[in-house]
Amino acid sequence: MDSMLKADTADVPARENAAERLAALAYDDMRRVDALILERLDSHVALIPELARYLIEAGGKRVRPMITVAAANMLGHTDMAPIRLAAAVEFIHTATLLHDDVVDESGMRRGKVAANLVWGNASSVLVGDFLFARSFSLMVEAGSMKALGVLSAAASTIAEGEVRQLSAVKDIGVSVDTYMQIIDAKTAALFAAAAQVSGIVAGRPSDEEAALETYGRELGLAFQLVDDALDYGGAAAQLGKSTGDDFREGKVTLPVALSLKQAGPDEAAFWRRVIAETDQKDGDFERALDYMHEHGALNATVEQARDHAARARAALSGFPDNAWRRALGDLADFVVERAY
Amino acid sequence: MDSMLKADTADVPARENAAERLAALAYDDMRRVDALILERLDSHVALIPELARYLIEAGGKRVRPMITVAAANMLGHTDMAPIRLAAAVEFIHTATLLHDDVVDESGMRRGKVAANLVWGNASSVLVGDFLFARSFSLMVEAGSMKALGVLSAAASTIAEGEVRQLSAVKDIGVSVDTYMQIIDAKTAALFAAAAQVSGIVAGRPSDEEAALETYGRELGLAFQLVDDALDYGGAAAQLGKSTGDDFREGKVTLPVALSLKQAGPDEAAFWRRVIAETDQKDGDFERALDYMHEHGALNATVEQARDHAARARAALSGFPDNAWRRALGDLADFVVERAY
Repeated sequence: MDSMLKADTADVPARENAAERLAALAYDDMRRVDALILERLDSHVALIPELARYLIEAGGKRVRPMITVAAANMLGHTDMAPIRLAAAVEFIHTATLLHDDVVDESGMRRGKVAANLVWGNASSVLVGDFLFARSFSLMVEAGSMKALGVLSAAASTIAEGEVRQLSAVKDIGVSVDTYMQIIDAKTAALFAAAAQVSGIVAGRPSDEEAALETYGRELGLAFQLVDDALDYGGAAAQLGKSTGDDFREGKVTLPVALSLKQAGPDEAAFWRRVIAETDQKDGDFERALDYMHEHGALNATVEQARDHAARARAALSGFPDNAWRRALGDLADFVVERAY
Repeated sequence: MDSMLKADTADVPARENAAERLAALAYDDMRRVDALILERLDSHVALIPELARYLIEAGGKRVRPMITVAAANMLGHTDMAPIRLAAAVEFIHTATLLHDDVVDESGMRRGKVAANLVWGNASSVLVGDFLFARSFSLMVEAGSMKALGVLSAAASTIAEGEVRQLSAVKDIGVSVDTYMQIIDAKTAALFAAAAQVSGIVAGRPSDEEAALETYGRELGLAFQLVDDALDYGGAAAQLGKSTGDDFREGKVTLPVALSLKQAGPDEAAFWRRVIAETDQKDGDFERALDYMHEHGALNATVEQARDHAARARAALSGFPDNAWRRALGDLADFVVERAY
């Protein structure tokens, strides 16, 4: 447990937590994915690799492509198809990040100034389009029409989720159900597709494909719920440099939706002012946290994440009990441990 | 010749010009394309069809999808695959228009206020992404991996062309060669793919596929050159409401690049001020036109378009001499006639 708390710090020895164990196991495959990503970023238009590498080399944990290669390995499938699909998944994800920065008018991304503030919105839009197009070329090379169908459907679902989130900003009428539908589309759909396509290229029967899809979707939901809790400091409300972004943007995430459900008149007026009108002053974020603690909203959010993570782990139960399956199962728990 | 001059006016009887003859010939297929477009625009997120229909129902001539269905018919291939690919081509085109509006900060599109000014940049970016994703789902339904590869490659080429154009704005160092490379990527690549994929799904040999690709590419180059000439009023420099956009944005199109090549010191200083610095005042657009006439830059642009149109027509020479081939050949000439 202690080692998990330090998950994101650089001085933790390798293999101490589940994400690192998975990364160590997938090391060779992920080097192939990275090599393919760099190769397919190439363009005679210098700005494209320059901007894309700025974001891609800033790191990020490559969780989504790692799911694709790990699931394929769990199934004993080790040709280039999952490598290519993993790179395609990362390209789709990177394209959505570039477009999100324009949509959200973000200031920071992966600890660096957002690309749109360095190169302008126009470049972020167009380089995102380039990555999106290249992701489909990678899928073509992977050779599975069915996998292509799954990933293109996921891509349109992501866009639908983002549009819905856009109209849900500053809307205190967003219910818990609506919020769950939004994160199912904008986040969980790509996790689900990333896992499912490995079953497709491995030629597994439809029940196994569905189990992989469930693993990815539940993991994605847990991941997003934890992210949303961490924006308010997580279960322990430990404020850090990355807290408060959602609050400042007036996003109604689960901790806010749960608080709103239980709010009396004064509190409801507070949320209306800070979210619907995004009229915020010093001390408002702390007051929001006080309300959340009063309602147990952060703990409830993390508990929901825990439920989804448990469902992700359970979805793997029918697969061979090998190191890959254990690592994928542990990853689900690890995602939630980040919240503490 | 006279009837062609009136190409875009509403009171011309049907079938008077080549575009209308082709549209009449392709009428049934294009109704199927339109129905498919409307069907696949559907989303439970109401803003998506609302915004996309705003643009798609504004018209546009559906030139690109019409090329796909006409070429397939010329080859005697009439199943759903070309219809699906035609809809996919129109979705890619519409997605790039939505993103272009954000990139160019356009005010008008297809005679209406640009979508990004009605719904905001964020919505235009995300709905463009949705259409782009849906275009790939349509390609999957068309069932040809090879066609998918051609269209995804075209999509990344378009993005490259747009990025290059972005860095070429306000750059008076843009040469004629660079300009031609930019329009080859941003415009001609999709025309080329639109024609080529019909040969692919019709199962034609590679030389026929290449001829179709050439037809589309040359037609696309002619189309863009004429558009760029029309932005300065065309060969006759007849100013209308849609003239001067490129000039105001500081875009170096062929008429400007050709003038720059022949400019003396005073004129070079003028272009530097109005394009590189976009410091423009009353009378500058007229002065630009005077320089262009002096150098014959608009006529030379239209002559180049005519050359490309002739190559487009010539590329069809090996195909069966039927009504579809004649209509596609006439379309190439018609594209250029617009410039007078």
